[in-house]
Amino acid sequence: MADYQLHYWPGIQGRGEFVRLALEEAGAPYVDVARLPQDEGGGERALARMLGELAPPPFAPPVLVAERLVIAQTANILMFLGREHDLAPREQTGLLWVNQLQLTLADLVAEAHDTHHPIAASLYYEDQKAEARAKAEHFRRERMPKYLGYFERVLAGGGESGAGLAGATLCYADLSLFQVVRGLEYAFPNAMRALAPKLTEVWSLVERVERRPRIAAYLASPRRIAFNEDGIFRHYPELDEP
Amino acid sequence: MADYQLHYWPGIQGRGEFVRLALEEAGAPYVDVARLPQDEGGGERALARMLGELAPPPFAPPVLVAERLVIAQTANILMFLGREHDLAPREQTGLLWVNQLQLTLADLVAEAHDTHHPIAASLYYEDQKAEARAKAEHFRRERMPKYLGYFERVLAGGGESGAGLAGATLCYADLSLFQVVRGLEYAFPNAMRALAPKLTEVWSLVERVERRPRIAAYLASPRRIAFNEDGIFRHYPELDEP
Repeated sequence: MADYQLHYWPGIQGRGEFVRLALEEAGAPYVDVARLPQDEGGGERALARMLGELAPPPFAPPVLVAERLVIAQTANILMFLGREHDLAPREQTGLLWVNQLQLTLADLVAEAHDTHHPIAASLYYEDQKAEARAKAEHFRRERMPKYLGYFERVLAGGGESGAGLAGATLCYADLSLFQVVRGLEYAFPNAMRALAPKLTEVWSLVERVERRPRIAAYLASPRRIAFNEDGIFRHYPELDEP
Repeated sequence: MADYQLHYWPGIQGRGEFVRLALEEAGAPYVDVARLPQDEGGGERALARMLGELAPPPFAPPVLVAERLVIAQTANILMFLGREHDLAPREQTGLLWVNQLQLTLADLVAEAHDTHHPIAASLYYEDQKAEARAKAEHFRRERMPKYLGYFERVLAGGGESGAGLAGATLCYADLSLFQVVRGLEYAFPNAMRALAPKLTEVWSLVERVERRPRIAAYLASPRRIAFNEDGIFRHYPELDEP
């Protein structure tokens, strides 16, 4: 019996991936429910039904079920997992700081998503391509440097070599920053190449995260879904023209 | 000497208002620093300078300084204030639930903002009016009913009469829901009028929040900035055509 059930769309990394990375780093047994075979409760239809039945009701996936706890909102799930599995400081100052960083990453993720869906998530990309192009240009020129430069500054200010966002010990925001950076690199390779020289601390952290034994094993496993054009980070070359 | 310093843009309610409401309901002494006269440290320029000097660095305002704690991200500040001033349950289940609701409200607030700035926050509204019209239509038709219907369902499911989002005791998410509903009513009066019959629990909560003595006193005071077209909730009639 697994400790946790994760409920999330089965075909994408999406916001669920931030939760998966924390569970994998913790070595916590979990079932990725919607990815089970249909006759074992998997699939998108079963997920949609499950979301309507959980109590208290979540607004949207990902949802983590931990015994009787039903937790939604990515940063909220991570705050819970951080405490349970020592992926965040326990004292108030550190706990608030890691939550603050995670919420800043969440804002960046939402903006990255909206580059391909600036008008409505319910429309196809093809129906908002011109607007996507305009939004993506602002995102690449203004928002990516601002957000990533912020995390570079935080890491550089950390002082000790080998330190992550919250100091010497790995925290869940480090895992999330890794995911965001690889996602942005997938979606906007040209823009990321241009920014790379200014992000030495960020890239160093990304590589340290990838070398962690459990993360490395996860990334090499079939549990890791590849980036694709149904997820948050999508590679549309027309949105990354230099 | 005030217990708290709030750092936020002086001319708008914005995201700072969610923090102000919690401070006011708590009766906590605070200084709204950027609203002081310039020779006492107020003004936008002083705010921008302050944001660059605070440590650890915030990405954006609002920022709450509480003795040596420097806390950013609205939901994070509210989690802190909720604990300090009994504006949230103390046990884990209730604490996570209120944080989850607050993060869902934060998502709604971000989408409401983007109705008038779908392409870039750095451009004028006038430079993205056509896109704003398209986005606002989806927001009014799909997103507002979905989000507000969700909060109606949560409140209706609460059971006991007079209960807020987290049960009988007022929590900071109740204050934030009040603010969001009044903001949406200001920005989209036609759309809100059409939705009202389905939101009886939501409106009942809004009115209960407004009758609380400290909130009522705050709303009648000069400390409450009026809704305006520099904030998150803006009334542009062309974005609210029935």
